[in-house]
Amino acid sequence: MRVAVFRRAHFNAAHRLHNPNWDEARNREVFGKCNYPNYHGHNYELEVKVTGEVDPDTGYVVDLGWLSKLIETEVEERFDHKNLNIDVPEFQGRLTSAENIAVVIWNLLRAQLHERYDLHVRLYETPRNFVEYPA
Amino acid sequence: MRVAVFRRAHFNAAHRLHNPNWDEARNREVFGKCNYPNYHGHNYELEVKVTGEVDPDTGYVVDLGWLSKLIETEVEERFDHKNLNIDVPEFQGRLTSAENIAVVIWNLLRAQLHERYDLHVRLYETPRNFVEYPA
Amino acid sequence: MRVAVFRRAHFNAAHRLHNPNWDEARNREVFGKCNYPNYHGHNYELEVKVTGEVDPDTGYVVDLGWLSKLIETEVEERFDHKNLNIDVPEFQGRLTSAENIAVVIWNLLRAQLHERYDLHVRLYETPRNFVEYPA
Amino acid sequence: MRVAVFRRAHFNAAHRLHNPNWDEARNREVFGKCNYPNYHGHNYELEVKVTGEVDPDTGYVVDLGWLSKLIETEVEERFDHKNLNIDVPEFQGRLTSAENIAVVIWNLLRAQLHERYDLHVRLYETPRNFVEYPA
Amino acid sequence: MRVAVFRRAHFNAAHRLHNPNWDEARNREVFGKCNYPNYHGHNYELEVKVTGEVDPDTGYVVDLGWLSKLIETEVEERFDHKNLNIDVPEFQGRLTSAENIAVVIWNLLRAQLHERYDLHVRLYETPRNFVEYPA
Amino acid sequence: MRVAVFRRAHFNAAHRLHNPNWDEARNREVFGKCNYPNYHGHNYELEVKVTGEVDPDTGYVVDLGWLSKLIETEVEERFDHKNLNIDVPEFQGRLTSAENIAVVIWNLLRAQLHERYDLHVRLYETPRNFVEYPA
Repeated sequence: MRVAVFRRAHFNAAHRLHNPNWDEARNREVFGKCNYPNYHGHNYELEVKVTGEVDPDTGYVVDLGWLSKLIETEVEERFDHKNLNIDVPEFQGRLTSAENIAVVIWNLLRAQLHERYDLHVRLYETPRNFVEYPA
Repeated sequence: MRVAVFRRAHFNAAHRLHNPNWDEARNREVFGKCNYPNYHGHNYELEVKVTGEVDPDTGYVVDLGWLSKLIETEVEERFDHKNLNIDVPEFQGRLTSAENIAVVIWNLLRAQLHERYDLHVRLYETPRNFVEYPA
Repeated sequence: MRVAVFRRAHFNAAHRLHNPNWDEARNREVFGKCNYPNYHGHNYELEVKVTGEVDPDTGYVVDLGWLSKLIETEVEERFDHKNLNIDVPEFQGRLTSAENIAVVIWNLLRAQLHERYDLHVRLYETPRNFVEYPA
Repeated sequence: MRVAVFRRAHFNAAHRLHNPNWDEARNREVFGKCNYPNYHGHNYELEVKVTGEVDPDTGYVVDLGWLSKLIETEVEERFDHKNLNIDVPEFQGRLTSAENIAVVIWNLLRAQLHERYDLHVRLYETPRNFVEYPA
Repeated sequence: MRVAVFRRAHFNAAHRLHNPNWDEARNREVFGKCNYPNYHGHNYELEVKVTGEVDPDTGYVVDLGWLSKLIETEVEERFDHKNLNIDVPEFQGRLTSAENIAVVIWNLLRAQLHERYDLHVRLYETPRNFVEYPA
Repeated sequence: MRVAVFRRAHFNAAHRLHNPNWDEARNREVFGKCNYPNYHGHNYELEVKVTGEVDPDTGYVVDLGWLSKLIETEVEERFDHKNLNIDVPEFQGRLTSAENIAVVIWNLLRAQLHERYDLHVRLYETPRNFVEYPA
């Protein structure tokens, strides 16, 4: 009896897209407004999906209170009210695209989650743009 | 040409999490506020997904009016404005976690749905906590 | 420069509508499913509106962190994961309709808010049924 | 590192369900209100999912600005503020069910998308009725 | 103790904007895509607000079940799955703008509502465009 | 026949709260995480309300296409993908609180709107924190 459980969380952060191997003209051409020099920001919405067997004693796949706390420690404390490009070591040398943020979050959570669970993350940069990893 | 169709429905119900094999202290430790004795409740949102071939005469996988009626009969009439722990026979001897509610709903609908269709359910306990079965 | 600021919060609670001055038949006739004996429940969404002058030193009408904490202390701790009919003294002798819950919340918050602010509350019982006080 | 990216778009259109091989009574029986002769309409919400590898130079699976423009050219310009039954050649001889609209949209987008990407579409006819293709 | 209660409902309808006193060029210039000849449509969301005193016996301003039924009879049965320009007598000689639809709905409901209540309607043509009457 | 029409728009921006007349300790004490030095950001949602008489020739209070364009020119082009503290002259010497942003937006739009219309703005900093001006 394999069930998937989901928990939503959110963090507010600044970022910009800029590839340091390219000149300004190329950066502006590829990234448009997302390359503006002084950063912009988003209310990121995060959806964490954990799949596993239901424990008959609790009726839980995993305690969502525990999962919520894990997301707080691993994701919100690192990213919330931060500048992803400047403040977050995980993005040194890595573009802060939604795709890359989702992969970084997945790696952070995967390291804390027992291997008997599967893990997927969905990250909304805006209500109309979002990503999932792994696909 | 296999397409999935989704129908959303909802019911309002009271419940609490309590394992009768444990003492009060253990129940409170594991379930926290969800164990409070006099019940709390939720606006449960249900998303039913039926997958199958499109009928060329109707353009339908399944008539959503019929599916809506099925959800009303099998789920809403059993659960809506009820206390899941007390009023619903399907939860005697089974914890009323979102995971278990989703499995019970899937079993009720599966019994009424032709085997040529696949069935999945997603159940929102709150906008931030939800489950899917089968995973 | 008078601005209104809003903060949303939520609590999950059980309740039923029952007028002890009426017999069962009258209760069932007036309140329908909301009168079912073993309670049902809702994810209540609360929207608190505070109106006042903007403080030029902070740019705030009121610190929303403080307001959020006030809602937690005055409303969530009293109502969240509770049975409104049984557990909450404010509803002894008062029907737990959305209208009355909103008035009770307004009274609790008003008592803690400086008189230079105006206060309004909106309470969603479901996404389709909600109330505002004062009107 | 395979990631899925999603872009939401919308169009407002009129339609009706009517099978010309059936008489009026059969059409009304099967399609109910959706068969009313003078059309009704919807705010269709479209969710396009593209799956592929992340480009290390951009952090993108695909430029969402480009994808948004593609949806505008291929879908919105054809369908927005149109009568799907009368104005859109793709629906001549095909019922304008949500299932069929999703398949038509998938075909239009698939023809413009490099084969290294996977493509899925989800189409909301209303917030409570929606479909996905391929399933 | 004056409280406002709200009930949301919805209907799906086709319409177009066209002023018969103007030629085609003027209509197209003023109304743009909304003037396309074969109609388009919307999922209209309606929010009905009734303000009055709370009845101490019920805790209600007005029974929302009754209000919901009234909206069904007066609004949904007239407008749902209809072409507002062709099928609805109230719009003969009147443009089917969101503003006018809101006024028509207000008049229909006002006629059925006791004068001790105030009435306001909000109508969403899309999630981004909506109107309120009276202002 | 006075009707209010609403148009929603959005912009993504970076900001921080910092009062230059205070030392770091006082800023951190009052503004908490919102004072972090390298900025954070939001998906701001803007709701513009214009109240006036319905024009019998168009059924419009104001052409929402025109209003949408006005918001684009006056608000989105100034604020979208910008750092409000650094890039926007209107916030030099003014804290970038939601309250102040709403007042700045109202002033920008008011200057372009005929005096026969009333104007109100609502600004969502997050789905749970928002403001209205004038109150």
